[in-house]
Amino acid sequence: MTYCVGLLLKAGMVLLSDTRTNAGLDNISTYRKMFVFEVPGDRVITILTAGSLSVTQTTLARLRDANESPDADETTSILRAHTMLKVAEIVGNALAAVSADIVEKMTRMKQSASASMIVGGQRRGGEMRMFLIYPEGNFIEATEDTPFLQIGEHKYGKPILDRVVKPDTSLEDAQKAVLLSMDSTLRSNLSVGMPLDLMVIERDACKVTLRRRIEAGDPQFAAMSEAWSHALRDGFGRIQL
Amino acid sequence: MTYCVGLLLKAGMVLLSDTRTNAGLDNISTYRKMFVFEVPGDRVITILTAGSLSVTQTTLARLRDANESPDADETTSILRAHTMLKVAEIVGNALAAVSADIVEKMTRMKQSASASMIVGGQRRGGEMRMFLIYPEGNFIEATEDTPFLQIGEHKYGKPILDRVVKPDTSLEDAQKAVLLSMDSTLRSNLSVGMPLDLMVIERDACKVTLRRRIEAGDPQFAAMSEAWSHALRDGFGRIQL
Repeated sequence: MTYCVGLLLKAGMVLLSDTRTNAGLDNISTYRKMFVFEVPGDRVITILTAGSLSVTQTTLARLRDANESPDADETTSILRAHTMLKVAEIVGNALAAVSADIVEKMTRMKQSASASMIVGGQRRGGEMRMFLIYPEGNFIEATEDTPFLQIGEHKYGKPILDRVVKPDTSLEDAQKAVLLSMDSTLRSNLSVGMPLDLMVIERDACKVTLRRRIEAGDPQFAAMSEAWSHALRDGFGRIQL
Repeated sequence: MTYCVGLLLKAGMVLLSDTRTNAGLDNISTYRKMFVFEVPGDRVITILTAGSLSVTQTTLARLRDANESPDADETTSILRAHTMLKVAEIVGNALAAVSADIVEKMTRMKQSASASMIVGGQRRGGEMRMFLIYPEGNFIEATEDTPFLQIGEHKYGKPILDRVVKPDTSLEDAQKAVLLSMDSTLRSNLSVGMPLDLMVIERDACKVTLRRRIEAGDPQFAAMSEAWSHALRDGFGRIQL
């Protein structure tokens, strides 16, 4: 499995992904699930992936090919698209096309494969937007009412987001929120694993503000996780039945 | 959906269930999912149910019939079984038989139905035990390493249990833990709903110690929920990134 989460806030966006993939419990690997397409000052697009690695890798490869093609234009390349909505459409179409190709092969073997993605970013002069792309290529968008999107193993880490994330949450608090949401998921589901990829993009910067890989044993993450455990136990202890 | 949880502790057991059932989002009802078979001082057995209401109601009806049958003996009646293991077997067999009957009918309509149960209790002179019965009728048991069992929509409420429930947790703290676990689930999943049924059974009492229905708007539950929200937000605020 996978856990990826993206927050779309007034101050900008914060994204976090794990890196564990597995084909069966005896075949576990580390793969990046966070990808960035950036022309600093002009546009920044981040894609988080969950699901079949063969689907997500092929989709990303096709998106890169489309960017580099001599025929690239605003309808095929996410680096040339005029709006984030168009970017979401291009990614959705690529994902749907790859899924269709692979599913056809898999069906012959009585298996299936699918993937979903979070696509967020901003183009100079445009709005900062974030989308969740379904395996079929259609998508939904983060809004003020629902300022976060999750893919993969999303349930364990949702309660903390439900409680603390609002559109005016600061980027610092947002980083804490996604890291604690991931911490709960890591504790409860073995198929989600370190290292983590964290990204912060300030609104209107049109470039990556902060990008950090958090390795297993990272002292800062461990201290935060420990402090949160203490806070939960303290809070629990003080509650009256 | 449903959320039911049972804790097996040194001091006894604590069980909690919601009551919401739905056949589609436009057909929501309240049904009890916690059932007690009690001969005070001799034995107490609690069954929590999740899944298809037609399966769980029929299974419970057959278990009651078996208790009242003139042919009832220790192999067919959970009120006469000599051990909790045998109780789990009887419930598992009844669930499997009902599932098989109903699945046969459903398959003709290209539909499916299944259910799972938590069975906990104690017979005088025997051990207090708790089992999770799968739709196929097989089961697993709560142990010191894993002192809680969950059925239904279990993921949202698992992180709090993972952190605070140990075999030597007091019955009071255990009630707080299951109520806060339910609170997280209620907030995150509409298909789990009030009122709640809470039960406490002290070890070796062989009878129900406390049984409480918590209605929507219950001031004690609302206060606890509010205090927990405060504690989480306070704790979150104090954590350093």
